Amino acid sequence: MKKHILVLGAGRSSSALISYLFNQTKENDWTITVGDISKPMAAERMAGQVSGCAIEFNIEDQESSRRAIASADVVISLMPAHLHVKAARICLTEKKHFLTASYVSDEMKSLDTEATSKSLLFLNECGLDPGIDHMSGLQVMDRIKSTGGKITSFESFTGGLIAPETDPENPWRYKFTWNPRNVVMAGQGTAKFLEHGQYKFIPYQQLFLRTNEISVPGYGEFEGYGNRDSLKYMETYGLRGIETMLRGTLRNKGFCSAWNILVQMGCCEDTYQMEQVGIMTHRDFFNSFLRFHPTESIEEKIASVFKLSLQGEEMKKFRWSGFFTDELVGLASGTPAQILEHILHKKWKLKSADKDLIVMWHRFLYSHNGIQKEVQAYLTATGENETTTAMAKTVGLPLGIATKLLLQEKIKSRGVVIPVAKEFYDPILKELKSLGISLVEREIC
Amino acid sequence: MKKHILVLGAGRSSSALISYLFNQTKENDWTITVGDISKPMAAERMAGQVSGCAIEFNIEDQESSRRAIASADVVISLMPAHLHVKAARICLTEKKHFLTASYVSDEMKSLDTEATSKSLLFLNECGLDPGIDHMSGLQVMDRIKSTGGKITSFESFTGGLIAPETDPENPWRYKFTWNPRNVVMAGQGTAKFLEHGQYKFIPYQQLFLRTNEISVPGYGEFEGYGNRDSLKYMETYGLRGIETMLRGTLRNKGFCSAWNILVQMGCCEDTYQMEQVGIMTHRDFFNSFLRFHPTESIEEKIASVFKLSLQGEEMKKFRWSGFFTDELVGLASGTPAQILEHILHKKWKLKSADKDLIVMWHRFLYSHNGIQKEVQAYLTATGENETTTAMAKTVGLPLGIATKLLLQEKIKSRGVVIPVAKEFYDPILKELKSLGISLVEREIC
Repeated sequence: MKKHILVLGAGRSSSALISYLFNQTKENDWTITVGDISKPMAAERMAGQVSGCAIEFNIEDQESSRRAIASADVVISLMPAHLHVKAARICLTEKKHFLTASYVSDEMKSLDTEATSKSLLFLNECGLDPGIDHMSGLQVMDRIKSTGGKITSFESFTGGLIAPETDPENPWRYKFTWNPRNVVMAGQGTAKFLEHGQYKFIPYQQLFLRTNEISVPGYGEFEGYGNRDSLKYMETYGLRGIETMLRGTLRNKGFCSAWNILVQMGCCEDTYQMEQVGIMTHRDFFNSFLRFHPTESIEEKIASVFKLSLQGEEMKKFRWSGFFTDELVGLASGTPAQILEHILHKKWKLKSADKDLIVMWHRFLYSHNGIQKEVQAYLTATGENETTTAMAKTVGLPLGIATKLLLQEKIKSRGVVIPVAKEFYDPILKELKSLGISLVEREIC
Repeated sequence: MKKHILVLGAGRSSSALISYLFNQTKENDWTITVGDISKPMAAERMAGQVSGCAIEFNIEDQESSRRAIASADVVISLMPAHLHVKAARICLTEKKHFLTASYVSDEMKSLDTEATSKSLLFLNECGLDPGIDHMSGLQVMDRIKSTGGKITSFESFTGGLIAPETDPENPWRYKFTWNPRNVVMAGQGTAKFLEHGQYKFIPYQQLFLRTNEISVPGYGEFEGYGNRDSLKYMETYGLRGIETMLRGTLRNKGFCSAWNILVQMGCCEDTYQMEQVGIMTHRDFFNSFLRFHPTESIEEKIASVFKLSLQGEEMKKFRWSGFFTDELVGLASGTPAQILEHILHKKWKLKSADKDLIVMWHRFLYSHNGIQKEVQAYLTATGENETTTAMAKTVGLPLGIATKLLLQEKIKSRGVVIPVAKEFYDPILKELKSLGISLVEREIC
């Protein structure tokens, strides 16, 4: 019987997923609909496909959302994360499977019992990070365990960066390859993890100061900062009794110390509207967070408050980003986070030929017959251009493959789950490898 | 006709208000009821009074709350701030006046139209800070304006500290003289103010680093940090076009740099539950916020991360507070803020003979006939003991006096207001002076 897939959200990350699904329609009897709040955007993502349907999809419009979902067998949501649960609730009523690449929220988790009882799969965290990190980490750890090893430490870092040949003069080595708002708000909340058997908590104001050094063969040195709650994965991963458990975000060296200044100044706050935004210049924006001084320039004030060199790496990044120009921000109103995003976007928007770079790195420590051992593994992926990014591929393909496996009835899991079981990671990692996405693993000493 | 006053909340700050009201019943035909979630607590506050009634009052119990409020002519709320609006809504229905010492919330403000149309006074911010600061500031500024002066700057700082003779060995020069939870959470959010015509915003992570130095004759040197949103008072105070407008909180020198370390570590976060609190010692608590180190002590880690001397003033305060002992915290669960409050309480709880100290300080700059002028004003008040604190007096008496003026029909204002009109500040400040609470004013240069 013909199966119908509904993809919700045709934004930045959907291109690779949609192409993958269309490529698979040759061998699988599928039809595909792509829905977006902007119908032209949905249509654009399907350009070049002979079949398929683009629709306007507004999750706030209950009745038309219900109709669209009722016609599908499986729903994949790439909408902004806070909207997933609304779509998931309709999927429960209409008895449809539901897949996302986003973190499981408490609300989503609360749907588990009902989804299970209706024999529905609500698969989340099946993208890159979270997603490939879970799957590749567990494949290695399950293998170590099966040969009698005892895992004592798992650290995993992933970052969406830019390739060395892109914007060589960009001192941040970073552009927006993902939702810009999420980039500006990254790390708000508290990072929670386990370090040598001790529970550790890093608040936002310390996060970009407490970085780890990470070296990836052929790609050089990176720095990583803690990503949300690593503790909850001890249970999910079956790693009770582990001593170190840390998930993190990876950036090029020097990024965090510069970003930290923006955090300390309060530029990433999203809780209040600023004043007189319509006439605000870039300089005015940054000056709002600095004490008045009759003669010192903004640059001098930042350097003196944060003990930076005026010619140092942080100030170089700020100058490159145009922070100290008299250019108007160009918004009528906004929170600090919205204004910072707008200013950064002027230099961090991907240009058509830009290539992004994904880097994932794991370190496993374990004991085997009383001997301490270490394995490292890493994955890199480079984008083709502004649209076919490595980010879109590594987020979209695992979702696409999981959808295929589900429709081919090769997945037995039901309820609200993340892809930590062998029935997910073995076939998904195998197919990703055939598509050129795989980890390099090496035993250390 | 006999008037009936209902006081809600018999906590720390209610003693002076309740005594004042009872003292006034001789000359005014009043009856007084004190309601608290704990009836014994309400009864204790009325010990020694020949009349009056103590009741159990639970704002969550709609029907009994309505009955209690329906029997009153005026309701004074000293309940936790987030409960005021629930009482205020019942006052609207039952057509009763309502007074608090707390900041006007957006929800409270939304009741203005209905309160005005029913000719009810909903007076807020009529305590110490906010309260006496508004009234004493406006009395001076209205006088300056009336003689043709133009106000260019208003800075106002208030602090609830301890008297020099109390706990001479306490290096913080601070104890809990007010809601301990509010002390631990103080400053979360963003301080907003105007400085030389520029809008300024200080996030929590910078707040205790951006202090102002303040000198009070006979009391020495203090430091002040920004308190919430000073911008909104430009309009309320009638000071449009002013160049500097800053309200702040005052502490003894050295307090802020030590407190800042607690903020930076994340000890004041209230957004998540910590792990294994039941077996947590004071040391464990602080170690949760520091990187694992195989040999360094917690003291060494704090000193190295925050660039402090091990023998310096900050570490001295932490040691005095018992932060580095192996004592159990003594809670079964808790957020960082709850646990920090519990640890601090062991040393910061007022002892019976302790005397608190209130310090308020204003600076006004203005031009008069082209000449720049400066006036400073300050108020100090010392408590008698643990119960009759200067805090309870300076918060409770303005509320009590306002209640009397209202019942004597000397207040014409209606709706949701704060005491910035002459009909409030003149009689209230006059009576406060007769009770020994007044500002000393001096022209500078």
